[in-house]
Amino acid sequence: MPMSDMEVENMKTTLKEISEIINGNIEGNENIEITSVGTIEDAKEGEITFLANPKYSHFLKTTKASAVIVSKEQPPLPCINLVKVENPYLSFCQILQHFNPHPVKYPEGIHNTAIIGKNTILGKNVKIGAYTVITDDVIIGDDVVIFPGVYIGDRSKIGNRTLIYPNVTIYHRVSIGCDCIIHSGVVIGSDGFGFVRDGDKQMKIPQVGEVIIEDDVEIGANVTIDRATINFTKIGRGTKIDNLVQIAHNVIIGENCTIVAQVGISGSTKLEKNVTLAGQVGVAGHITIGENSIVAAQSGVSKSLPPNSIVFGYPARPMMQAKRIESCVHQLPELLQRIKELEKKVDELEKKR
Amino acid sequence: MPMSDMEVENMKTTLKEISEIINGNIEGNENIEITSVGTIEDAKEGEITFLANPKYSHFLKTTKASAVIVSKEQPPLPCINLVKVENPYLSFCQILQHFNPHPVKYPEGIHNTAIIGKNTILGKNVKIGAYTVITDDVIIGDDVVIFPGVYIGDRSKIGNRTLIYPNVTIYHRVSIGCDCIIHSGVVIGSDGFGFVRDGDKQMKIPQVGEVIIEDDVEIGANVTIDRATINFTKIGRGTKIDNLVQIAHNVIIGENCTIVAQVGISGSTKLEKNVTLAGQVGVAGHITIGENSIVAAQSGVSKSLPPNSIVFGYPARPMMQAKRIESCVHQLPELLQRIKELEKKVDELEKKR
Amino acid sequence: MPMSDMEVENMKTTLKEISEIINGNIEGNENIEITSVGTIEDAKEGEITFLANPKYSHFLKTTKASAVIVSKEQPPLPCINLVKVENPYLSFCQILQHFNPHPVKYPEGIHNTAIIGKNTILGKNVKIGAYTVITDDVIIGDDVVIFPGVYIGDRSKIGNRTLIYPNVTIYHRVSIGCDCIIHSGVVIGSDGFGFVRDGDKQMKIPQVGEVIIEDDVEIGANVTIDRATINFTKIGRGTKIDNLVQIAHNVIIGENCTIVAQVGISGSTKLEKNVTLAGQVGVAGHITIGENSIVAAQSGVSKSLPPNSIVFGYPARPMMQAKRIESCVHQLPELLQRIKELEKKVDELEKKR
Repeated sequence: MPMSDMEVENMKTTLKEISEIINGNIEGNENIEITSVGTIEDAKEGEITFLANPKYSHFLKTTKASAVIVSKEQPPLPCINLVKVENPYLSFCQILQHFNPHPVKYPEGIHNTAIIGKNTILGKNVKIGAYTVITDDVIIGDDVVIFPGVYIGDRSKIGNRTLIYPNVTIYHRVSIGCDCIIHSGVVIGSDGFGFVRDGDKQMKIPQVGEVIIEDDVEIGANVTIDRATINFTKIGRGTKIDNLVQIAHNVIIGENCTIVAQVGISGSTKLEKNVTLAGQVGVAGHITIGENSIVAAQSGVSKSLPPNSIVFGYPARPMMQAKRIESCVHQLPELLQRIKELEKKVDELEKKR
Repeated sequence: MPMSDMEVENMKTTLKEISEIINGNIEGNENIEITSVGTIEDAKEGEITFLANPKYSHFLKTTKASAVIVSKEQPPLPCINLVKVENPYLSFCQILQHFNPHPVKYPEGIHNTAIIGKNTILGKNVKIGAYTVITDDVIIGDDVVIFPGVYIGDRSKIGNRTLIYPNVTIYHRVSIGCDCIIHSGVVIGSDGFGFVRDGDKQMKIPQVGEVIIEDDVEIGANVTIDRATINFTKIGRGTKIDNLVQIAHNVIIGENCTIVAQVGISGSTKLEKNVTLAGQVGVAGHITIGENSIVAAQSGVSKSLPPNSIVFGYPARPMMQAKRIESCVHQLPELLQRIKELEKKVDELEKKR
Repeated sequence: MPMSDMEVENMKTTLKEISEIINGNIEGNENIEITSVGTIEDAKEGEITFLANPKYSHFLKTTKASAVIVSKEQPPLPCINLVKVENPYLSFCQILQHFNPHPVKYPEGIHNTAIIGKNTILGKNVKIGAYTVITDDVIIGDDVVIFPGVYIGDRSKIGNRTLIYPNVTIYHRVSIGCDCIIHSGVVIGSDGFGFVRDGDKQMKIPQVGEVIIEDDVEIGANVTIDRATINFTKIGRGTKIDNLVQIAHNVIIGENCTIVAQVGISGSTKLEKNVTLAGQVGVAGHITIGENSIVAAQSGVSKSLPPNSIVFGYPARPMMQAKRIESCVHQLPELLQRIKELEKKVDELEKKR
């Protein structure tokens, strides 16, 4: 019962056909076949990509993409097929829609099984799926889409145009901004993990704070974001969070961060803006990661990092240093040999003295 | 649409105001402003904390908290603002409630859309939210609160006063004790991961055991706890589990353990009491971690540990040894230089002999 | 309220009683007590196991199991209790059922609160639980069982005899094969994590591809499988996935792979058939792991691996090499001493020359 290969085959398109969809001008071979899309760094043969930000224009020399959508101002390049358009990013999204004959269907209006609590205010043109429960004193903005099986606790707020997929749980007093996307299985506002040991017993510290998610945040499937002990846990505007990430109580994440899958951020830690945490990174509590920092996959960060840090490893070290150490570790068996050799020679030297 | 800053501002309170709420006596500056709470180890300036257990009294000298709630027996301390009360922990929780004008609202009674199966017994004063499904032969204790969208499989049991948040899934034959808290997205009783390879094929081993959660256990959002192959998987009384933790089939966790976010414990492993596993730790199958042991974040434990172990690293080693090795690893590039130097010198010594 | 110990006690059975259930012939002590089951590698005293595949017959010499179910052709073995039967694997499963007086109860028929969309086709003998929502243009095969609280998006397909536990979310255009088992909290078809930076802003790349799950796949609780950017994310026939695993967009997993809990596989990576990734492994994007490869727990794989690789560590290295390096790392403090010693001696030699 897998999708027929035919449907997949249909996705092969010549560059000429693609150019017609986006009203572009081709410089290069209009007959090559495009089978997929990619980013300018990672695209492979057969793929089309785009260049919107001049910062990335050096990738034009190295990209393996079969074609690149560029702006009309782009000077000609002999080795690569170009499609020139007004707005490369918008054209690229149009092409993706071309490869997408059936976009997701939203719920239609407010389903008659959806439960809306007392004093809850719904904006204009809200869509709410079956069996979704929205409790009391909630504010839902305009054009919000909420799929079936979602729970929204009391006094929470959902900003305009935010999209919430099925089976999401939003506890009480959680504030979500405009234009956010919340994927299925996400839990926002669960209690922070706070206990005080009294001998063998662990006494719960009440978690009475809130969660604030700013505008334009995307949160991947089964992510967990805990409410603060007091004050708030906060995700800054434009930050993107991948699946299965854990964000503990009182964490403050700045704007436009990128948090890849299975990252864990411990309590009260702060990420400044534009920070990237690659997959499975762990960050200790009560530290600050400076803006524009990048932490490589699986690293463990236990101390604060200054802005523009690039770190790697467990414990995380500056990338250059980590690589040097890594290369030494690799040579260790050979080093051990060299030390044995030295010991033998020194021994003989001592004897013959 | 984030919460107004005003609401957060309101949370600033003088120490005098706080002292009045908990009927305490101040020794120190009653006019300082308190903006938040913290633990005695980690509190920062502007925060108030408490000391309930004499074991932690040495932290009184190092805490950065602006004030500490202590018992009436506490001798005066010149450098720190004290608030003396009868029961410091209870007073601390009262203060948290002060910072919490709107605690979570429970469902009211049993919602008319909740489905209750045959032979299922409900205790007194049970609250069950909309669209929750409780199947046959289930026993629900007194004062249990179950939010919307929860599923409870047949022959399961939920102890008195246990609190189950929305969208939790409890499979059949799962026993949960009294006074537990189960956060959203938790799955308890899914099949253990057991297969037998027959050439290329993997044949499923039926998972016919159970899960037992004892009293006073808290389980964080999106945690998964598998049922046993036979017999049971068990979480001991008073153990606290953070978000996104994986507990495999036939794992036995002792009393009062602390399992931090994203930990994974493999099949048939046993944790004795008071064990702490920090974030993202991985524990191999079929081993035992002795009581009071502490495993540092991201460590990998592949062998049994005696009681009172403190280990770190991948593979996990005793903390002292791990730190010494870690410091050597850090010096490796320099060591390599020193070996090269030695080789040169020995070479010359050999020539000149 | 934990299960009574009596029920657990009941599970003790003599080997004679077990032999009668499966109509076997005992060679050895028929009076020993069996308390549990295990695999031939890992079983402990008191446990019964089985041998179906001759490939594993060497384990007969080392297994600690108290008895082994074997085929009638098995030659006698003096040191171990054997139960001879026609089909050892089937007999083993029967014994598990013996230890399981109460197997899981499926929903009965199609619950009147289940919502079925337009043009959705249901096969014969389908069971659908309460409050499950199946949207438009979905195809559900024969004998499919869907528990309560499940969501299935438009144009998805579920193959014959597939079993879907409560609170699973399947987005639109996801194809699931026959005989699959999907545990609670699983999310299949959420958007791949694809953004393009435009200065500070991160623009979303539409994720318009699909997900294909082939036949006989089991997916553990709270696993996330993202839809492809274009084309598809694919899980091969017979692959088994443990809890809390993350599978990114455009990942292609071959047949009969074993993916243990909390593994993360980054975008566009390919696993060939029979690959085993142990717990908490991380795999980088755009690489290929050759067939029959095994990656040890918590390892990080950043480069492609040839077939039959056995790797370990972070970064992952061939097992032999990794162990040699690991052993050197362990000796580092002592090596440092030896280097200091050498330096001293060489110094003296130089002086005395």
